[in-house]
Amino acid sequence: MIDTDIELLKGIANQLRIHSINATTAAGSGHPTSCLSAADVMAALFFGHMRYDAKNPHYYNNDRFILSKGHAAPILYAAWAEAGLFPIEDLLKLRKYGSDLEGHPTPRLPFVDVATGSLGQGLSVGAGMALAARLDKLDYNTYVLLGDGEIAEGSEWEAASLAGIYKLNNLIAVVDANRLGQSQATAFGHDIGVYAKRFDAFGWRVESIDGHDIEEIAEVLSGVGLDDKPLVIIAKTYKGAGVSFLQDQESWHGKPLNKDEAARAIAELQPTTRPAAGAAIPAPNQLPAPNNAAPAGYPPVSYKPGDSVATREAFGNALVRIGEVDERVVALDGDTKNSTYSEKFMKKFPARFTECFIAEQNMVSVAVGFGARAKVPFVSTFACFFTRAYDQIRVAGISQSNLKLAGSHAGISIGEDGPSQMGLEDLAMMRAIAGSTVLYPADAVSAEKLVEQMALVKGICYLRTSRPKTPVIYKNDESFPIGGAKMLRQGAGDKATVVAAGVTLYEALKAADALKNEGIGITVIDAYSIKPLAKDIIRTAAQKTNNTVITVEDHYAEGGLGDAVAGELSAAGIKIHKLAVMSLPRSGKVEELLEHFGIDAAAIVKKIKSLG
Amino acid sequence: MIDTDIELLKGIANQLRIHSINATTAAGSGHPTSCLSAADVMAALFFGHMRYDAKNPHYYNNDRFILSKGHAAPILYAAWAEAGLFPIEDLLKLRKYGSDLEGHPTPRLPFVDVATGSLGQGLSVGAGMALAARLDKLDYNTYVLLGDGEIAEGSEWEAASLAGIYKLNNLIAVVDANRLGQSQATAFGHDIGVYAKRFDAFGWRVESIDGHDIEEIAEVLSGVGLDDKPLVIIAKTYKGAGVSFLQDQESWHGKPLNKDEAARAIAELQPTTRPAAGAAIPAPNQLPAPNNAAPAGYPPVSYKPGDSVATREAFGNALVRIGEVDERVVALDGDTKNSTYSEKFMKKFPARFTECFIAEQNMVSVAVGFGARAKVPFVSTFACFFTRAYDQIRVAGISQSNLKLAGSHAGISIGEDGPSQMGLEDLAMMRAIAGSTVLYPADAVSAEKLVEQMALVKGICYLRTSRPKTPVIYKNDESFPIGGAKMLRQGAGDKATVVAAGVTLYEALKAADALKNEGIGITVIDAYSIKPLAKDIIRTAAQKTNNTVITVEDHYAEGGLGDAVAGELSAAGIKIHKLAVMSLPRSGKVEELLEHFGIDAAAIVKKIKSLG
Repeated sequence: MIDTDIELLKGIANQLRIHSINATTAAGSGHPTSCLSAADVMAALFFGHMRYDAKNPHYYNNDRFILSKGHAAPILYAAWAEAGLFPIEDLLKLRKYGSDLEGHPTPRLPFVDVATGSLGQGLSVGAGMALAARLDKLDYNTYVLLGDGEIAEGSEWEAASLAGIYKLNNLIAVVDANRLGQSQATAFGHDIGVYAKRFDAFGWRVESIDGHDIEEIAEVLSGVGLDDKPLVIIAKTYKGAGVSFLQDQESWHGKPLNKDEAARAIAELQPTTRPAAGAAIPAPNQLPAPNNAAPAGYPPVSYKPGDSVATREAFGNALVRIGEVDERVVALDGDTKNSTYSEKFMKKFPARFTECFIAEQNMVSVAVGFGARAKVPFVSTFACFFTRAYDQIRVAGISQSNLKLAGSHAGISIGEDGPSQMGLEDLAMMRAIAGSTVLYPADAVSAEKLVEQMALVKGICYLRTSRPKTPVIYKNDESFPIGGAKMLRQGAGDKATVVAAGVTLYEALKAADALKNEGIGITVIDAYSIKPLAKDIIRTAAQKTNNTVITVEDHYAEGGLGDAVAGELSAAGIKIHKLAVMSLPRSGKVEELLEHFGIDAAAIVKKIKSLG
Repeated sequence: MIDTDIELLKGIANQLRIHSINATTAAGSGHPTSCLSAADVMAALFFGHMRYDAKNPHYYNNDRFILSKGHAAPILYAAWAEAGLFPIEDLLKLRKYGSDLEGHPTPRLPFVDVATGSLGQGLSVGAGMALAARLDKLDYNTYVLLGDGEIAEGSEWEAASLAGIYKLNNLIAVVDANRLGQSQATAFGHDIGVYAKRFDAFGWRVESIDGHDIEEIAEVLSGVGLDDKPLVIIAKTYKGAGVSFLQDQESWHGKPLNKDEAARAIAELQPTTRPAAGAAIPAPNQLPAPNNAAPAGYPPVSYKPGDSVATREAFGNALVRIGEVDERVVALDGDTKNSTYSEKFMKKFPARFTECFIAEQNMVSVAVGFGARAKVPFVSTFACFFTRAYDQIRVAGISQSNLKLAGSHAGISIGEDGPSQMGLEDLAMMRAIAGSTVLYPADAVSAEKLVEQMALVKGICYLRTSRPKTPVIYKNDESFPIGGAKMLRQGAGDKATVVAAGVTLYEALKAADALKNEGIGITVIDAYSIKPLAKDIIRTAAQKTNNTVITVEDHYAEGGLGDAVAGELSAAGIKIHKLAVMSLPRSGKVEELLEHFGIDAAAIVKKIKSLG
């Protein structure tokens, strides 16, 4: 890079600093000092190195940039404003109600692929994007700016390990090692050799630099891609860099400057430069666009009545079936693929499968990265192990990611393995994700059809599957729309409506048969769509059965099917009685456990009779 | 160690192998090959090295052992049976309903401190125990047996980093590097140098050994504590070791042998030895017992009416106040202590405070470790960041841990920082933990009193606190029992009962005042105890207000206060109308957000009027 460019970048870095200070001062909150440490790196990346079309942030071969240290949002906004995407004046709307320039970045902004702000997730998303680029034969790079505080998060090391294993040399991490966390210095301060040693041990090429020396930054960036390893640049920086009374000072985290302080700071930030319009930003290469079109439809399902197939296996079958015609579909698993049956997909489409090993947090965020590159990622593991990645799923909700989760081995119906392997809080967890869809099929046909729906609808979908084999009860051509339910038993004079899903549906059907012999009728509904719930269907049915509903679920009593039905229908005067797992489970045979925890046919019969 | 001891240990290792095979064959499920790889290490630890009273597994100065790879439970059970704690015959009850020898270890067994089985948590718990030993001036060591597959989990590296930072040389990890995961080989197979390099980079002393060479194992164990670093022993092993047709073979994960295979395997396992009764196990040193008695009471709370104090700050005040008289209380934070106010405790009791840096998974499990050593650990961070540790909290539920979580900055009432920092699913998440208590105070007095309750009750308690200051509304001598609620407004002819908590309680009170001016009365209840819910109080109130309840909460509509009330009361014919955050939040001023998301006084008034 020639000398004039270096001088230009130095000026741009100061300009970005000034924007960051002005915006946070105008907002009255925010993290200006966390922006200042990153300014030189940001200037070098955005105005001399990264290849992107600044007018079209979504262009498929643009280099990607993820601000993992999301609290430095103002400098990201400043960079895109200076790149010409929106007016500089808008920066002063930071954190204001109605502005998309929020306190931490969200994809309401076209140049933000994923929300950040919950630390330690960006590198995983970046790894997903790097894998997507490889799959799509595109040559964009993915850059992730990390804080030094956040690399204490284990998810960073899950991501680092995976990127090392898969030799993602199109992934570049920059650690803005400014020494200071929120409440005190980081554990290692400016001993950046610790980070270098760690990334090296995790299979990365490491470059350690002075993060305020533009020349050094530019030089190390010029070496991107010259190796078969991912590259991490450890940039030793100072929080508040460039302003004498902020630089390297404690107690300035997350504090805006008042107007006087801002004026004093800005006076110190010299020289400043604005980027030259257009020419300064290298354009991406022209390469064929990937085929990410949704297919017109999927091949048919074919089970026979009387087949007995676990819904988890149907999930695996469905993945293969839809994968045949839908190139967007990719799958990820965390060393459970022989239990979740995602192995079927791996065997058929090895290039579209990513083994993520036992690291669920990273796996979910890698999938978010695939989703942000127009893939339809299906992530599978045991239902209980998605709890490991709840923060990642929560943030995917904020990102409005296109993310498909399939949790197998739900509930006590796994039997002997015991409580640590039983997903009993997954419905509660997944319902409480903004905009989520939560599905829980009972048989193979419905499981397959719901996988189709998951692929076709945009957003976060969760499929809950079971370990035991269950009989096929639906016809191959039945449809299972999201938000629907199936009425399986209904008669005049029914005493109550039993709402079940998954394994408990069969218990409800058994209860109906048993009660029928005693002359008692009950309505039975398969609530395969937990969220959105088919509330009209259930309410209408309940109103014909003394406004009485019994929910029965292989899940804790809190936040699952029972609470969903009660929360939706109690306002209409429907009385909901919940049968659920009410205490800590243990090992045993499936039937023993269903009986002990009161969610089997006998418990339903008993409850119905107790209604008087 | 003398030669005869080595021969004895070799025989014991085979005996443990045989028990593991017999138990899993009898159960018809389980993970025998994962036991066999660990047998030599287990024999050396339990019958030659660890110091413990085998008749009294809870003895306070016993060495601790955590089987992080919980699926190898049968060999743990075998070791304790051989140590004489319970009859050998009981081993054949493995995984049977009614037996405490479950598929994965739980603290139903006296020699199990914490449940394991969700991989990657044991090292964190071990770090907590090692810190507790240091605090209590006890010289027991904590041993953690890890699988190689599980160290892909980021939580392991969070734990490794913390143990390195705090130089926990009383913590010893053994990696049973048997090369094979569940569905395929691990990423690094037998290239154990990778693990050595990583632990070294994380500040550990590393010893790499042949995990089937008893002499080598014994020798390296004899060096425990000879350094100021934690020690990791990387043991190269073979899955199924000792049995020709199992050893190092794929597709044997989680599969029991049939009877013929078991007989053939056992015939190969020679020689075998049973440990000599008593003498073989070194006794722990006699040291003064720590004072872990609960205090008779706590000093009084003192706020003035009219004070305005954030509940998060009251939490910090309470920690100091109860910490003065309750030596069991320790605190942990993840670099948010200046926001959660746990900093107050740190300043007063630095030795009882652990800064865990930005690594919430590890932080929670470290606290579980403290709890397992009779401490009362309070863990604080933003409410939203506990989602990061949901699996750890879930497993703490299975462990029935004594764990106190305080999540600050709940809900949209944090304002400008935006959705990534807003805890909006924490009530759903925490309610769905087996046996949990979920508390949500509105003012400083109730917050302080609830912290007292948390310290006094055993189990997992969650305190939800808010960012904004709120007026003190309760008297200093009021009591706030768990499971209670406060009736703040009630009159004859009230139109509905409004159930609120935290910041929305003030909105409900404002709404009551506004409606009163229009001649409409409403009952207002502070549901500070979300779980257990004061259902009798709410039901009785509701029955006086047309069976109508309105819940209003700064939480998503799923799984929170509204669902809790509906789930508990709809069966009694109470109609519950929910006001909650129904869509994805954004940055803005608190009042703007409360209004936009329909949980302010105006929304309550509107809802009341709409009831007709």
